[in-house]
Amino acid sequence: MPNTRAYAAAEAKAPLTPFTLDRREPGEFDVAIDIKFCGICHTDLHQTANDWGGGTFPMVPGHEIAGVVSAVGGKVTRFQVGQHVGVGCLVDSCRTCVECRKGLEQYCAGQVVFTYNSMDPKEGRVTYGGYSNKIVVDENYVLSIPENLPLDGAAPLLCAGITLYSPLRHWGAGPGKKVAIIGLGGLGHMGVKLAHAMGAEVTVLSQSLNKQKDGARLGADHFYATSDPDTFTKLAGQFDLIVNTVPAASNWDQFIGLLATNGALVVVGVPDDAVAINGFPLIIKRRTVAGSLIGGIAETQEMLDFCGKHNIVSDIEVIPMQQVNEAYKRVSKSDVRYRFVIDCGTL
Amino acid sequence: MPNTRAYAAAEAKAPLTPFTLDRREPGEFDVAIDIKFCGICHTDLHQTANDWGGGTFPMVPGHEIAGVVSAVGGKVTRFQVGQHVGVGCLVDSCRTCVECRKGLEQYCAGQVVFTYNSMDPKEGRVTYGGYSNKIVVDENYVLSIPENLPLDGAAPLLCAGITLYSPLRHWGAGPGKKVAIIGLGGLGHMGVKLAHAMGAEVTVLSQSLNKQKDGARLGADHFYATSDPDTFTKLAGQFDLIVNTVPAASNWDQFIGLLATNGALVVVGVPDDAVAINGFPLIIKRRTVAGSLIGGIAETQEMLDFCGKHNIVSDIEVIPMQQVNEAYKRVSKSDVRYRFVIDCGTL
Repeated sequence: MPNTRAYAAAEAKAPLTPFTLDRREPGEFDVAIDIKFCGICHTDLHQTANDWGGGTFPMVPGHEIAGVVSAVGGKVTRFQVGQHVGVGCLVDSCRTCVECRKGLEQYCAGQVVFTYNSMDPKEGRVTYGGYSNKIVVDENYVLSIPENLPLDGAAPLLCAGITLYSPLRHWGAGPGKKVAIIGLGGLGHMGVKLAHAMGAEVTVLSQSLNKQKDGARLGADHFYATSDPDTFTKLAGQFDLIVNTVPAASNWDQFIGLLATNGALVVVGVPDDAVAINGFPLIIKRRTVAGSLIGGIAETQEMLDFCGKHNIVSDIEVIPMQQVNEAYKRVSKSDVRYRFVIDCGTL
Repeated sequence: MPNTRAYAAAEAKAPLTPFTLDRREPGEFDVAIDIKFCGICHTDLHQTANDWGGGTFPMVPGHEIAGVVSAVGGKVTRFQVGQHVGVGCLVDSCRTCVECRKGLEQYCAGQVVFTYNSMDPKEGRVTYGGYSNKIVVDENYVLSIPENLPLDGAAPLLCAGITLYSPLRHWGAGPGKKVAIIGLGGLGHMGVKLAHAMGAEVTVLSQSLNKQKDGARLGADHFYATSDPDTFTKLAGQFDLIVNTVPAASNWDQFIGLLATNGALVVVGVPDDAVAINGFPLIIKRRTVAGSLIGGIAETQEMLDFCGKHNIVSDIEVIPMQQVNEAYKRVSKSDVRYRFVIDCGTL
């Protein structure tokens, strides 16, 4: 599939500019997708800036992909032309390790192939992501998007959605459980919607009360400012689960103090530096600090089906591809409610 | 029960000396116990030195109590005169909070009454522990010691035993699971025996290889020195559960790196200072850092029954009460294999 249009960063920290690439012709197990929309994830900013190292340039970012099947290989059984589909952070994994066999491909002990900036043995080159108008992916890593969900709002479910859904499910969010979400951004607003739909009592812990109205609209039962020290005395020992979506919110000891017996603080954003925590508050209430990374393929499908059932999509601002560099600037200032989605039809 | 003999610290850091106290007469729900043996826990050293503050003196330490029932109140149903019984770290709790109702009295949100150095509403004064020849305890906080276990070796099960049993059970130690125990001391040697009896594959992570033979005898399948940096590369990503019994082993990041996907590092000893950990290694394998504190009453009974079935007791050195101050000095140098037990008949 030559002449696939895309936007790429030519080198680290370069603005994104038009780029042309070849996708492979669909093999017998492949699904060819016309990309309609692609969300902008904060990871895309880190990767194109090469903040974490290991960047291969030119880099085409994008792992919140929603589109329509344009062709399928001869042995594809689960997808057909015209179907709404999504692609998230992974397009392949080793398929043989303990993790892959358990449906935890995101923790694959072998070789994960990420949707972009990852060596792909099938293509013999680095992967190119969803800031593009077409992609070809093995059917085992393609997700079905329920037909009742709009494709633009559904795109961010493929990363932001599953990043929150997985820890909420794994740590048992549901009726009778008190869940707090730290940060009301792209990730956090999905956490509020999902935890609310799961039946949990949901509290937002935001730096200020600026987004309090939004919190209520999204499904939060309570809203507290972390800039107010009273928050940490009022809510002490309250929560069964706290999901921390804000890498900069690294005062973990304060949040650990808000956990009930057996409560868990789960971090989904990587803080730049090591975080100091005390052992005593963990021991006296059997509290847990843990990490969580996106979700496996089966769980991502489960999340999409859950969103279909509950009519959940991301709150988005749709932009043409030509405005991606401005959008990046605004994302870096947290100036978006709550996710930019690129209209890939503008390519 | 006046003129109960005991040893007490008259003030913080004072040596233990003979002391006489009154125990209450058994009420209708009480069990009166002739104390035969009491283990020396590292906590006793911290408490008599008032390292953690809040000490009431004179202080009679001791919460690893094994003895024989000498009398029971009229409404006691579960114990009879002559029965072998134990008392651990708790002699009462609020009995009404969520935790107490779940059998997690050690995490009681109300008022826990610890076996010593704790205000006891029933006695209207501070509690006195097991370095004594008698004690009176509500039957709900008395444990039955299986008759096949010697009382001296069984005494340390009441704290050291349950401190390891509870996290091993809670985090699923058993067949097919790889468990590591950091530190082969009073706590650690119980962890090895218990995890082995539960069917797990057990590794000891000790500072040196000095105790390697003991490790094998106690049931360890593998033994590694944490002073050897190769240990941390060889064992990377191996363990489902690591229990850290050594407060000074605060290089948690190194141990987190040894955890498999979904693995947990559980700390049971309180480090003096905050510990710095990185978020990334938690996130990429859904790893957990948690704390655990002794166990509830029902779980302590379950542990004793398990030990009865598997003939597990602590490896001990029995001393007369008159040698307790020497024993304290040796405990502070980790010079005991693996637990001192006081023969309370020498009082």
